[in-house]
Amino acid sequence: MTSEYDEATTFELTGNRATARLSSDWGIGNAVNGGIIMSLLAQVTSSVSRSAGGHGDVLGLSAVFLSPGADGAAEVSTDVLRNGRSMTTAQTLLSQEDERVRAFVTLGDIDRYAEPITLNPQPPAMPEPDACVRSSDAPPDALSQSGLLSRVDIRLDPACVGWAVGQPSGNGELRGWIRFADGREPDLHSLLLFLDAFPPVTFDLGAKGWVPTVQFSGYLHARPAPGWLQVRTRTTTVAGGLHEEDAQIWDSTGRLVAQSRQLASARF
Amino acid sequence: MTSEYDEATTFELTGNRATARLSSDWGIGNAVNGGIIMSLLAQVTSSVSRSAGGHGDVLGLSAVFLSPGADGAAEVSTDVLRNGRSMTTAQTLLSQEDERVRAFVTLGDIDRYAEPITLNPQPPAMPEPDACVRSSDAPPDALSQSGLLSRVDIRLDPACVGWAVGQPSGNGELRGWIRFADGREPDLHSLLLFLDAFPPVTFDLGAKGWVPTVQFSGYLHARPAPGWLQVRTRTTTVAGGLHEEDAQIWDSTGRLVAQSRQLASARF
Repeated sequence: MTSEYDEATTFELTGNRATARLSSDWGIGNAVNGGIIMSLLAQVTSSVSRSAGGHGDVLGLSAVFLSPGADGAAEVSTDVLRNGRSMTTAQTLLSQEDERVRAFVTLGDIDRYAEPITLNPQPPAMPEPDACVRSSDAPPDALSQSGLLSRVDIRLDPACVGWAVGQPSGNGELRGWIRFADGREPDLHSLLLFLDAFPPVTFDLGAKGWVPTVQFSGYLHARPAPGWLQVRTRTTTVAGGLHEEDAQIWDSTGRLVAQSRQLASARF
Repeated sequence: MTSEYDEATTFELTGNRATARLSSDWGIGNAVNGGIIMSLLAQVTSSVSRSAGGHGDVLGLSAVFLSPGADGAAEVSTDVLRNGRSMTTAQTLLSQEDERVRAFVTLGDIDRYAEPITLNPQPPAMPEPDACVRSSDAPPDALSQSGLLSRVDIRLDPACVGWAVGQPSGNGELRGWIRFADGREPDLHSLLLFLDAFPPVTFDLGAKGWVPTVQFSGYLHARPAPGWLQVRTRTTTVAGGLHEEDAQIWDSTGRLVAQSRQLASARF
């Protein structure tokens, strides 16, 4: 049986162009989550790069979001910009009538870059998943506005969910666990989804509403081991209605497998 | 008299294409420093955006470095991808025969996004510039290999220069001050240069040699006040000969005015 994630990132490739479908099953409000779009872009880019004799594992992806992805057909096209011995660089666009997302993608052989580990930050302390607050316990109106919250199983450290009852901690940090709700194990390119699946970290500062990403850069460090992923999102910089959010993901062995930074709005 | 920086980022614009010159005066080894190239790209993008009725201040810039910039003529071209009410998104390329750097640029009115400040990290403690180690005191062979080190005045906290005498601290952090050597005051787009002007942070872990940036994302938060800038670069993630370097810049009022993350090699 195909997992929900694999179904959502299915595409048909002809040359360097792919057709796919974005689904509101992965929506946040009126937009399709940027993370599932980036996972799709990563997979198309990987296929095109391999076909061109290039590398297939995404090491880095920088995206600009021009307008929100909508439920329906989408076209993805990839241009390989440089095919080097150790890395391939590509540019990938997603269009739905007009252009929605554009990304630079650096690819390599992830297993070559995963070892040896010289420096690796430890995951923060947090209660076990069963002692955390479940995304499925979110208020019914939040769940009905977000298909994403039914596709991923998020467990937030109770110490950073005060915002859900009007008492944000003011620390600008969320910690918790994440996995696919249907039991699919995480793989390398799904980490891009998980980097952008938590509620906005500005909720912890009292901000309201999900807000669109302006610019995003994610880096993937290793294939994740099976099991729960640990996530920490933080912001240190909020001004003029803009903020930066940093996300880190550790796999079940405690290894940092991905991190990202995004520039996004913040509504107070 | 024109400052060295203004001379190095001079360009002649015709429509959405500009001609410029990269100079080994701003070199690191055989390459022209990526920071001066990004400052040039920011200025060209700003001019093209304004001509198209768009915004003029860079808020974010994500670049991929396809091959090193070389001394000589360069062509820069900008396409405005989206011109919105509050932000403009553009893509800018720098070519010298072949393509060298490609960047996504998000522009807005920086003064609108600079206030009010909701969250702003404080600069780290460090000795005053005169109590720090000067870049001009670097060994003669290092200075002769790097024009950049004569154009910017870097003062490193003595606590993080042990690597210069074979005793890296192992913390993965550099702290210090920076300004233009000829006394020019910093402005918004020059922050992109300053984000990429410090020695590689991996020196503090015992790595050798300046290494090319693969992918870079910088965010600009406010126009810097005149005077010294404080810089901290850190890495938490080094594996398989790749690392991520985060840089932060505070102006003389103690405000965080810019930050960046880059993916680069690390040679041990």
